[in-house]
Amino acid sequence: MIQITLPDNSVREFAEPVTGLEIARSISNRLAKDVLSVSVDGEIWDLTRKIDHDAKIKLHTWDDREGKEAFWHSSAHLMAEAIEQLFPGTKFGIGPTVDAGFYYDISLPGEKQLAEKDLEKIEQKMIELARQKNDIVREEISKKEAMQLFNSKGDEFKQELISELEDGTITLYKHGTFTDLCRGPHIPNTGYIKAIKLTSIAGAYWRGDEKNPMLTRVYGITFPKQKMLTEYLEMLEEAKKRDHRKIGKEMELFAFSEAVGQGLPLWLPKGAQLRMLLEDFLKKVQKKYGYDQVITPHIGDVNLYKTSGHYDKYGKDSFQPITTPAEGEEYLLKPMNCPHHCEIYKVKPHSYKDLPVRMAEFGTVYRYEQSGELHGLTRVRGFTQDDAHIFCRPDQLKDEFKKVIDIIFIIFKALSFEDYTAQISLRDPKTPEKYIGNPENWDKAEQAIIEACEEKGLKTVTETGEAAFYGPKLDFMIKDALGRSWQLGTIQVDYNLPERFNLEYIGSDDNRHKPVMIHRAPFGSMERFVAVLIEHTAGKFPLWLAAEQAVVLPISEKYNDYAQKVSDFLNISDIRTVVDDRNEKIGRKIRDNELKRIPYLLIVGEKEAESETVSVRRQGEGDKGVMELSEFAELLTNEVRNQLSGLYN
Amino acid sequence: MIQITLPDNSVREFAEPVTGLEIARSISNRLAKDVLSVSVDGEIWDLTRKIDHDAKIKLHTWDDREGKEAFWHSSAHLMAEAIEQLFPGTKFGIGPTVDAGFYYDISLPGEKQLAEKDLEKIEQKMIELARQKNDIVREEISKKEAMQLFNSKGDEFKQELISELEDGTITLYKHGTFTDLCRGPHIPNTGYIKAIKLTSIAGAYWRGDEKNPMLTRVYGITFPKQKMLTEYLEMLEEAKKRDHRKIGKEMELFAFSEAVGQGLPLWLPKGAQLRMLLEDFLKKVQKKYGYDQVITPHIGDVNLYKTSGHYDKYGKDSFQPITTPAEGEEYLLKPMNCPHHCEIYKVKPHSYKDLPVRMAEFGTVYRYEQSGELHGLTRVRGFTQDDAHIFCRPDQLKDEFKKVIDIIFIIFKALSFEDYTAQISLRDPKTPEKYIGNPENWDKAEQAIIEACEEKGLKTVTETGEAAFYGPKLDFMIKDALGRSWQLGTIQVDYNLPERFNLEYIGSDDNRHKPVMIHRAPFGSMERFVAVLIEHTAGKFPLWLAAEQAVVLPISEKYNDYAQKVSDFLNISDIRTVVDDRNEKIGRKIRDNELKRIPYLLIVGEKEAESETVSVRRQGEGDKGVMELSEFAELLTNEVRNQLSGLYN
Repeated sequence: MIQITLPDNSVREFAEPVTGLEIARSISNRLAKDVLSVSVDGEIWDLTRKIDHDAKIKLHTWDDREGKEAFWHSSAHLMAEAIEQLFPGTKFGIGPTVDAGFYYDISLPGEKQLAEKDLEKIEQKMIELARQKNDIVREEISKKEAMQLFNSKGDEFKQELISELEDGTITLYKHGTFTDLCRGPHIPNTGYIKAIKLTSIAGAYWRGDEKNPMLTRVYGITFPKQKMLTEYLEMLEEAKKRDHRKIGKEMELFAFSEAVGQGLPLWLPKGAQLRMLLEDFLKKVQKKYGYDQVITPHIGDVNLYKTSGHYDKYGKDSFQPITTPAEGEEYLLKPMNCPHHCEIYKVKPHSYKDLPVRMAEFGTVYRYEQSGELHGLTRVRGFTQDDAHIFCRPDQLKDEFKKVIDIIFIIFKALSFEDYTAQISLRDPKTPEKYIGNPENWDKAEQAIIEACEEKGLKTVTETGEAAFYGPKLDFMIKDALGRSWQLGTIQVDYNLPERFNLEYIGSDDNRHKPVMIHRAPFGSMERFVAVLIEHTAGKFPLWLAAEQAVVLPISEKYNDYAQKVSDFLNISDIRTVVDDRNEKIGRKIRDNELKRIPYLLIVGEKEAESETVSVRRQGEGDKGVMELSEFAELLTNEVRNQLSGLYN
Repeated sequence: MIQITLPDNSVREFAEPVTGLEIARSISNRLAKDVLSVSVDGEIWDLTRKIDHDAKIKLHTWDDREGKEAFWHSSAHLMAEAIEQLFPGTKFGIGPTVDAGFYYDISLPGEKQLAEKDLEKIEQKMIELARQKNDIVREEISKKEAMQLFNSKGDEFKQELISELEDGTITLYKHGTFTDLCRGPHIPNTGYIKAIKLTSIAGAYWRGDEKNPMLTRVYGITFPKQKMLTEYLEMLEEAKKRDHRKIGKEMELFAFSEAVGQGLPLWLPKGAQLRMLLEDFLKKVQKKYGYDQVITPHIGDVNLYKTSGHYDKYGKDSFQPITTPAEGEEYLLKPMNCPHHCEIYKVKPHSYKDLPVRMAEFGTVYRYEQSGELHGLTRVRGFTQDDAHIFCRPDQLKDEFKKVIDIIFIIFKALSFEDYTAQISLRDPKTPEKYIGNPENWDKAEQAIIEACEEKGLKTVTETGEAAFYGPKLDFMIKDALGRSWQLGTIQVDYNLPERFNLEYIGSDDNRHKPVMIHRAPFGSMERFVAVLIEHTAGKFPLWLAAEQAVVLPISEKYNDYAQKVSDFLNISDIRTVVDDRNEKIGRKIRDNELKRIPYLLIVGEKEAESETVSVRRQGEGDKGVMELSEFAELLTNEVRNQLSGLYN
């Protein structure tokens, strides 16, 4: 008898070897339809592979990353089959899955270049082949046999990959007319694939090395239902409209200048206002939680980063050191703020009573990225972290984690991110040699994080072996309004830097001890966060965060003076107000200011000027009627108060 | 007859050549006693030199820099005479005046090193020689004769200096037993020098070049009255107590770390708080005056600074370019913010109606200084300018200058700087080729500055020929509480950068025009300003600017809870309050917190806890009696309101 243990620890017994698909069917027909892959003792298998020993299993559907990966991986194979049939002699590089979908790097015969209409042809062929519902079959062969096979196909890329594998069994996957070198796992047959969209073509050097031949990379995405593809394409369309680069331009939030340099954002007045509002908000929250702001330089002696270990990571492949003309000094643009904060910790001695010390800085750091990797505000070469470091005693870790989680909750609340999860990354207890610091402290820290998350009611997944070598961590993922996931804030325990910088405090036992350090950045970086926020809100920020909260629109130049008077009154009441006194028709003014996403439009003409009122339009909600100035000011003040109520006061 | 015109344009006639001293005597005996040198047609002369032609003159006393310089220059000669008598065979380098006093670089015979007690001996000898009231006599000789003279003395330093002079008449000055190569001018005789203090000894390479021999630099200062020396020494003593490096440490405002790098300040929590309060204050004032904040990166492409012209100034001798590993790019740490702001100006087109554009940034810039030049916060390698650039039409210049002057007045008022002047620097109309831009625009800009100062009632001096090549400017000088002068804010017209960056606006005539650019920084830099502010106030900042406005001191641990309650109440009322709950005697706590310059100390014990009151002590004023919490909160709120009343609201 084979005993199969399910995630809920229930056990099913089978008389003979059994497949994942058969197990699913034994549970329900619905599940048998939805299941895509299976984890067997932590390793992901094909659904059709026989399990011949007692095992713990988990069945994966489309809702799990593991399910999607098998599906998309098989889709890559299906695309390769279609291409091989359409363009015989094509050679194949690698064909992995990506965040959304998959790609395959291919080398077409002759000088053939793919065009848009080729993609449609490939799609059609894929649909035709998928309808054949060909089984996807796993096969084990020797390395030598594998070499012979791909040699006979004349595919030097696959041969290169095989040559680097260890001796022993190599797996192939076959379906229809196509055979690929592949670790798997795959879905049972191509018939699962119901909806197909090839999305784009790009060039990519073989193995990412520009000395190698350039291959054609074909991107695609597939779904088990046509409706899911339709929704996905609609989401892409909406995402294009919400592209932070597009909205950033329309709202005049930021710009890039080739003359200043690639990936170095210039924050325009309204973007700088937005950023300062976010920073001031976080400063207030942090003040409530006992943080001290500090300010440190943007460069540091190279040796500082050798001490911290950052030089190894950011030295050779990043911005190169800055030398001085006379004194033989070498400085680095700081890639991290932590070494500077460690130096501040060392300015004076600390007693156990002084801890925790919580040091915050909106610290701008610089890290080189290849120009091809740069993307709007999400991938830049200079960015400002909402950084802080907490130096605490081991017994304070859990409490400090809970407080940081509170701060992150406050931010999510203030900015209407309602859907978030967190990943706890723990060390792999099987390889203790990979981690710095005392194992007992690790146990305590991991336990502290787990308990802090539980006590705060935070939805988490736990990943063993994902901790950094210097400590366990907690990462926050949010879902935006389009359902896309973004990794944002992080909380990270660090046993390494206190060691490297020889940080100390005097304990209640009068002995010297090393503090634990926590790195944390709820926003991550101001640049990336603002990009996510723009795409989440489509630029319609909550009122408290709007650089311009109201704009006064006189219906003709005759009412410019009154418009200015309204604006002055509101500004004195701390409502950020501007006047659009351009000599344009009122309809045009309304459209232009709606594009700028100003929350309130105040239209003023003869009636309003005489009665000292404004006609109020709320962005996205339309007409709100005529109000007296003080009434309108109170409305806005209350709206802001409600948005921030209780968050930091 | 010789006609002598005085500064008030009155004319005195003399039958034969006349000296400055004789002219002074013809006016009053008092003036004849006080006068130290005379300007003759703009050149400064000895008082005893005969004027044999019609001339415009100005008599200089101790109150003028020109008077002091003659006095201290003669004092340097007197010191040299004393040293030569005490240490025959001494060779002399140069002996100029400095801001306060003078020095002489000397090479003593043998391996002789001066000790502190030698300074006393030299002082005694100087007093003895001064009492001889030896006349200081000007003598003209040929270059050849001069060479012979110093050759006979074996003084190779003087010979080197003479060899570099142009052929023609060379002047010597003689008094008592001492003769020096010297341009003068000098006071009539050594008897003027009544009070002498030699202040320090330092090493200095001949002509500042480390390949040359090291000389001994002896610093001194002298006065025409003993009382003035006493006051000066008291001021020095007070200045030492107020040294911003000392107070900065006591108040934990900032620190330096060798590991981070020399001249790169770390702003500790209380210093960062102070700086943010200053920045927030200026942001509010600037908002009132229509400025927009922007944020730009701390590096820029090298070509950006070649375009701006800054590379010539900050390229070779400053922090060297940063290269990137793959793409052959070169970046510079930004030495100035203006090129970045010009790029922001260019992000969108401008019409004459959009101007002025006022762009502000607290921009941190980096400029290399030799480590020997670094000094606390006043001379650093990285500093944050309270920078702004105004892009305006020529006809808006005067109004914009007036507005910037207003802002500077507001700052001086908020920070109790009561004694300030400004210098207007104009172009030299004799050398128009030295200046960029249209002469008509220069005339208009200079006129605009002069009128703006007049209309604002600003006390100014005007210096012709002191303008930068790219525009006229206005610099502010303040006197601190010790009477020392500091140069602070600057307002600078610039015709150059709009040209170099090809900035434009569309005029009402529909043609393209170049805007005028104004650079302005009222604080100058946050670092230097904070240093001056610390020394001006001895760290006792106005209440609104104190990082910690009140500290609660429980008289024993029993009252710690009540102390915390008081602190919480005050913090909610926006009064920055901390608790000193250390287990120390109350007297010790009071002393420690007074050293931290916390304005209000609130002592709480049984009586206060029961009646929910605090015993209030005001820093420097002592006991203020017992108050209820709300009463105390109101007192502070009013004090802050009074300090800032009407400044930005």
